[in-house]
Amino acid sequence: MNIEKVAIIGLGLLGGSIGLAVQARAPHIATSGYDSSPAARAKAAERGLVGRVYDSAEEAVRGADLVILCVPVGAMREAAMAIADVLPPHAIVSDVGSSKQSVAEDLAAALPGATVIPAHPVAGTEQSGPEAGFATLFENRWCILTPPAGAEQAAVDTLAEFWRTLGARIEIMDPQHHDLVLAVTSHIPHLIAYTIVGTASDLEDVTRSEVIKYSAGGFRDFTRIAASDPVMWRDVFLHNKSAVLEMLGRFTEDLTALQRAIRSGDGETLHELFSRTRAIRRGIIEEGQDDERPDFGREH
Amino acid sequence: MNIEKVAIIGLGLLGGSIGLAVQARAPHIATSGYDSSPAARAKAAERGLVGRVYDSAEEAVRGADLVILCVPVGAMREAAMAIADVLPPHAIVSDVGSSKQSVAEDLAAALPGATVIPAHPVAGTEQSGPEAGFATLFENRWCILTPPAGAEQAAVDTLAEFWRTLGARIEIMDPQHHDLVLAVTSHIPHLIAYTIVGTASDLEDVTRSEVIKYSAGGFRDFTRIAASDPVMWRDVFLHNKSAVLEMLGRFTEDLTALQRAIRSGDGETLHELFSRTRAIRRGIIEEGQDDERPDFGREH
Repeated sequence: MNIEKVAIIGLGLLGGSIGLAVQARAPHIATSGYDSSPAARAKAAERGLVGRVYDSAEEAVRGADLVILCVPVGAMREAAMAIADVLPPHAIVSDVGSSKQSVAEDLAAALPGATVIPAHPVAGTEQSGPEAGFATLFENRWCILTPPAGAEQAAVDTLAEFWRTLGARIEIMDPQHHDLVLAVTSHIPHLIAYTIVGTASDLEDVTRSEVIKYSAGGFRDFTRIAASDPVMWRDVFLHNKSAVLEMLGRFTEDLTALQRAIRSGDGETLHELFSRTRAIRRGIIEEGQDDERPDFGREH
Repeated sequence: MNIEKVAIIGLGLLGGSIGLAVQARAPHIATSGYDSSPAARAKAAERGLVGRVYDSAEEAVRGADLVILCVPVGAMREAAMAIADVLPPHAIVSDVGSSKQSVAEDLAAALPGATVIPAHPVAGTEQSGPEAGFATLFENRWCILTPPAGAEQAAVDTLAEFWRTLGARIEIMDPQHHDLVLAVTSHIPHLIAYTIVGTASDLEDVTRSEVIKYSAGGFRDFTRIAASDPVMWRDVFLHNKSAVLEMLGRFTEDLTALQRAIRSGDGETLHELFSRTRAIRRGIIEEGQDDERPDFGREH
């Protein structure tokens, strides 16, 4: 299968980055786009995120070989329903949502008979909206495809090749396992970052100004993640509830054990954990998934 | 008071950075240093972290106007006792420890009659040891002084001026309040980072390779902090126990409330929190305490 035109529904950080990456790395593929916000459409047109921005999803999708839904996971079903009548029969429908079981169900229900291959490029920044995208966002990042049982292999291959063209590496997973893996590598980290930033904001005996001034002690790292898009993340937690609650249970068990070690002055337990957590970071750097410079390469 | 010679005991990230910063920004001040590890002394001499590296703390301290103890907070008392006999009577003794009540007590007990002004420069990276230091570590970071009741104002002013020379901004605080503030801006963030990295390492249904590959979803941020020096952090939790346990209690209360919101599908509570946590990050960037570039300025 050959992709000659991609339609991108939702022109925020992910959708905009896909549009820019296609234009930079595969300029023979035409790009069209739509966003439900008129202001986002105007900004997307101004930045040239896609070849043409349309005022309706139907128009954007006409003639597309690949449609990628880049909206919060809670908005997937509605976004799919809006294009159901005009979707070319041969088109592949995919998405970039952070939870895959719910998206698979929503897209299958909204687009009976369509070729749906859900996907999740594990990439992003704390910024959002049509100003945030950039062409290199997916380089050397993993894109996980979760084809439903019985999916056409040709469609899976075509989508994989599309993502490779944007610089991504490909993994195939079943949606349930995806949701468990991402609960631990993404959803729980966001949840605890949002929580500690909220806790710090609400203290009475420590002022907000103190929290800000002394944030270089570690806290500031958490504020980056906690500046992520609120609607996107609300939807992730509502749509990946069971995996998030399961992983959260394990995290709080481990935290309780450390709390007990601190209370009882058990330095050995603390030292043992603090020593072995370094190995994971080394692995991440060796695998090319983080900057090896100290402090993420922040300027000093 | 005039500082003509600074002795640095402990030549890791902090001690080494002080030595390099003095040589870069106040070359008229002589620097001497000592580290209990022979390998660290050799590396410190090779890198020129201080003007001269000595084989004993006593030798390093002779003739110093200012002695800065840059060892884990659990090693402060012993480090102070080792210099008690040779400490010049006029010298100021300070430190860089992350907990201040315990350090104040330990130094006062080990050095009766000495001028002790504990301090904490809120700066660092995840790296440690004599290779890790650099001259600009303290630029635009806050250094908190916690002078004991009745401390000589001239000594406090001299120490403040010394840190300003290294590029730091100065705040005066009582040690108890310091320990509470840092529990939330530094100690709890480290504890939860260590915990989630440990949790992720120990899972059976998600492999270590998966955790590494998909870490760009947020998890990798936590691994940086969780790569910090294990002995230093063990000591922090053992020496700031009550403030850490208090703040940990508030964090887990807040996390439990979010867990309940997720379980009951209460999107409004999630959205409300996720929306207001952005303000703190804006404050941190405006105050110059973090890089405003997306993703901390990581390369994409």
